[in-house]
Amino acid sequence: MSPSPQPAAVTDSPFLRACRREPGPHTPVWFMRQAGRSLPEYRQVRAGIGMLESCRRPDLVCEITLQPVRRHGVDAAILFSDIVVPLAAAGVDLDIVPGTGPVVAKPVTALADVEAIPKLSSEQVDYVAEAIRLLRPELGATPLIGFAGAPFTLASYLVEGGPSRTHAKTKALMYGAPDVWHALCRRLAEITLTFLRVQVDAGVAAVQLFDSWAGALSEADYRRYVLPHSKAVLGGLEGAGVPRIHFGVGTAELLTAMGEAGADVVGVDWRTPLNVATGRIGADKAVQGNLDPCTLFAPAEVLSAEVRRVLDEGRAAPGHVFNLGHGVLPETDPDALTRVVALVHELSAR
Amino acid sequence: MSPSPQPAAVTDSPFLRACRREPGPHTPVWFMRQAGRSLPEYRQVRAGIGMLESCRRPDLVCEITLQPVRRHGVDAAILFSDIVVPLAAAGVDLDIVPGTGPVVAKPVTALADVEAIPKLSSEQVDYVAEAIRLLRPELGATPLIGFAGAPFTLASYLVEGGPSRTHAKTKALMYGAPDVWHALCRRLAEITLTFLRVQVDAGVAAVQLFDSWAGALSEADYRRYVLPHSKAVLGGLEGAGVPRIHFGVGTAELLTAMGEAGADVVGVDWRTPLNVATGRIGADKAVQGNLDPCTLFAPAEVLSAEVRRVLDEGRAAPGHVFNLGHGVLPETDPDALTRVVALVHELSAR
Repeated sequence: MSPSPQPAAVTDSPFLRACRREPGPHTPVWFMRQAGRSLPEYRQVRAGIGMLESCRRPDLVCEITLQPVRRHGVDAAILFSDIVVPLAAAGVDLDIVPGTGPVVAKPVTALADVEAIPKLSSEQVDYVAEAIRLLRPELGATPLIGFAGAPFTLASYLVEGGPSRTHAKTKALMYGAPDVWHALCRRLAEITLTFLRVQVDAGVAAVQLFDSWAGALSEADYRRYVLPHSKAVLGGLEGAGVPRIHFGVGTAELLTAMGEAGADVVGVDWRTPLNVATGRIGADKAVQGNLDPCTLFAPAEVLSAEVRRVLDEGRAAPGHVFNLGHGVLPETDPDALTRVVALVHELSAR
Repeated sequence: MSPSPQPAAVTDSPFLRACRREPGPHTPVWFMRQAGRSLPEYRQVRAGIGMLESCRRPDLVCEITLQPVRRHGVDAAILFSDIVVPLAAAGVDLDIVPGTGPVVAKPVTALADVEAIPKLSSEQVDYVAEAIRLLRPELGATPLIGFAGAPFTLASYLVEGGPSRTHAKTKALMYGAPDVWHALCRRLAEITLTFLRVQVDAGVAAVQLFDSWAGALSEADYRRYVLPHSKAVLGGLEGAGVPRIHFGVGTAELLTAMGEAGADVVGVDWRTPLNVATGRIGADKAVQGNLDPCTLFAPAEVLSAEVRRVLDEGRAAPGHVFNLGHGVLPETDPDALTRVVALVHELSAR
């Protein structure tokens, strides 16, 4: 790994300063899923193009990643991609079905299925590196966040065959065949680490590891079945010079453990106030979050009050990256997002 | 309200003793959704009969409620019903669609929609009272738990028009039209209280108020928009002589507030260990829970270890009713449930 040096304006950006727990001119703000269906310009460029195909076209990835930066003036861009992109690139037979999500042709049930998952080579995701190289000059002083799905969340898709509310098959495999489970997660951790290293080498300024569904687990199960594999990914980026953000939903009881996975910044959903979260995560990590995405449907004065509350609670943390507590919902009015960016900047100006 | 006196064997049952935080011969155990799709005898009697229709037939309700008592030897029966039964009985146009859940013909968006929701009269749920009267002699010493959905969860179905992952419309109504929201919840609290009083009068020995989706809210929103209405329901049963159990999923941050709603017993999902939950709920309330329903798919030795852990953690509480952390999943092997009952009894025998 030989990360491209970042321009000084990126290194000194409010986003990277907050990740490093250094004071900055204002609290930085970006939104999970900011590059996506809430934007009419996104729906326009995506028209007729499948999700996986759009993630493989550097020109489209570049355009879509830039859209929310242009429109909202967010403090960071996040690479447009999907957590199953590296799996598809490695050769796992899956598709992203509109209205459903990832659908896997042959779900994992046994060790042979795990062994059949190919490793990922950097060349297989050249288009991602190319998109990042296209993006950097366009972004100027705005840092670009790379991302990947964490082993547990990827494993859940592979074991369930698609999205699941209960993760019952996933947990059954964990409990019933821990050797298969750990082999699966080791393979996924390798793929994820390769995917993130490609992004770091191509020039992302930070990475976010999404363990979207980790909140389905108790802390004991998380520590036994998940933490070692997330640690392998985040630990593999130690010394790479990029802050590592780690996020999941419904993780009230997991925040301490998720911080231990090797995160520099822990993402928090809207259920746990940031001051409470900081108590669990510790003073050596920044926090990211945590406006309820549904407050974007609220009247302006309610939304403002909620933004103020999140900023106030975030002052308890040694560093705060303002974000939602989960992704932007597709039916969100983009103007509400633009107003939140302006308000965060105004209220937090130092 | 003039609750029927319970037989001494019911009053002294391990279940009611645990609810009252009194020591008993063993830790009582029952399972949310124990009367349901995991049982072949349930699928047989339900064949060709719609969910709402089956809830309206006292003979069927009686049979289905008894099935898990006969099969597993659980320490309590729970009335077979659905949280939308009182709404349908009052005249709200809705149906329970297999594979989807409740679907409401005309979702609530304005005050006129709230005013159009009729009040519930006791006579409209006579069939529920009749089922309870049929059940009591059949159940003998086994206590019968009545139940209802809490205002927030019912409101979510009425506002969204059906099940929702995000509850976005519900929260938008809360934030944007709090007068409509509170009027809706007041009406729902009245209906729920009427429904529970019918059950208490007919002879249930305890009630459980399900606020299944409350965990979608931050504590601040829960306290502002939900707690007063749940309090109105649970407070309306004060002095009725029946323990009140209050349960929701993903409520790590809400346990203190949910206890304040007027519960004698707070149900806890599997994410929060019972000893941790007790610290939040306080020593004046019992807890119920909290085996992960997915552990029922685990090998016998893993399941046993988890049952032991839950019992151990439950010893920190002043009273413990063993249960799952959420409902029995339809694909569960009923024999696993039977084994859990035997194991809980064996391990907790005093």
